[in-house]
Amino acid sequence: MNTIITIGRQFGSAGKEIGSKIAEECGIPFYDKELLSRTAKESGFCEEMMEIHDERPTSSFLYNLVMDTYSFGYNASSFGDMPISHKIFLAQFDTIKKIASEGPCVIVGRCADYALSDFDNVLNIFIYGEEEAKIKRISEKYNVDAKAAKDMINKKDKQRQSYYNYYSSKKWGRADSYDLCINSSKLGIEGTKKLVIQAIEDFENR
Amino acid sequence: MNTIITIGRQFGSAGKEIGSKIAEECGIPFYDKELLSRTAKESGFCEEMMEIHDERPTSSFLYNLVMDTYSFGYNASSFGDMPISHKIFLAQFDTIKKIASEGPCVIVGRCADYALSDFDNVLNIFIYGEEEAKIKRISEKYNVDAKAAKDMINKKDKQRQSYYNYYSSKKWGRADSYDLCINSSKLGIEGTKKLVIQAIEDFENR
Repeated sequence: MNTIITIGRQFGSAGKEIGSKIAEECGIPFYDKELLSRTAKESGFCEEMMEIHDERPTSSFLYNLVMDTYSFGYNASSFGDMPISHKIFLAQFDTIKKIASEGPCVIVGRCADYALSDFDNVLNIFIYGEEEAKIKRISEKYNVDAKAAKDMINKKDKQRQSYYNYYSSKKWGRADSYDLCINSSKLGIEGTKKLVIQAIEDFENR
Repeated sequence: MNTIITIGRQFGSAGKEIGSKIAEECGIPFYDKELLSRTAKESGFCEEMMEIHDERPTSSFLYNLVMDTYSFGYNASSFGDMPISHKIFLAQFDTIKKIASEGPCVIVGRCADYALSDFDNVLNIFIYGEEEAKIKRISEKYNVDAKAAKDMINKKDKQRQSYYNYYSSKKWGRADSYDLCINSSKLGIEGTKKLVIQAIEDFENR
């Protein structure tokens, strides 16, 4: 096996769990939060700072407008005025490419599909779910009521969408931003995992 | 097998061919243009008229605004002022439900997913492709140059999108409007067919 799998996901759709099971079954590394510590190690950013900015849009729209006039690059000496969130994004971008060049793996979120757009051996997956199923999952996982779960889902997905649409040239949640999109509520965690593994096989046999 | 498969598709993505192959392999009926003749037979609309309005948005935005104040229903005697496009849509809507109640089948386009939203045994698929692959396919199929193929693709997809977004409560091409979305350029016609059949099996085994 030679394929890198990136997974975009709606909050509560079990995308992380499914990604982890795929990695386990294929015997390849899995990166979700693991990406943060790896990037921290390689870039020198502290992990807490990365956690704060993880898949969140930069704080102020106006600030971004101003910062957009600067070129990208996270070398502190030449781009001292770039917001920390941009620097972190670029450091993560580099780490994603480095990880991908080490061999097959599963990477969850963080615009990994966009970072790896020059790689041929990548399959980009998006996992989503039905509202009722997502609310149930989040309620149980965080021990909150349905209303609070729904608010968490809306907030998280809005953040992920802003982050993705800001940093990539694609639209979060649009089918054609990915190679394969699966409703995990309809196929279940095992069914979704099985389908992705089938897709990897078909992709590698072409 | 007990599943009805609906297929939304980008023009040039081979969605129709893939749907036809799925129906063949599963030994179930296939409806694309076949839906028009069946609806014509059951509603009394002439097939040529159905062809003219097939998956096209109604002609005038202003006209639609006015017509929106009327309730739906295609009985000519009680809704004499409803535009013909709406009447055809509703007749097709009824035919889709009737077909689905007859047993498993594959239905391409025409908001079939929306028409069957009350059915439990439906799997909604969206098939799309990469621009280069779609242009190549359309150029060869219609014997036109790349520029003309691209124009055809843009026009057709715009029509399908308007039609879908107007008549359904969902957004055409958004992943979460469907259960499974596949980039046929990445997996190929055979790979895409295989994946859908795998999804049907997983869905039926739940």
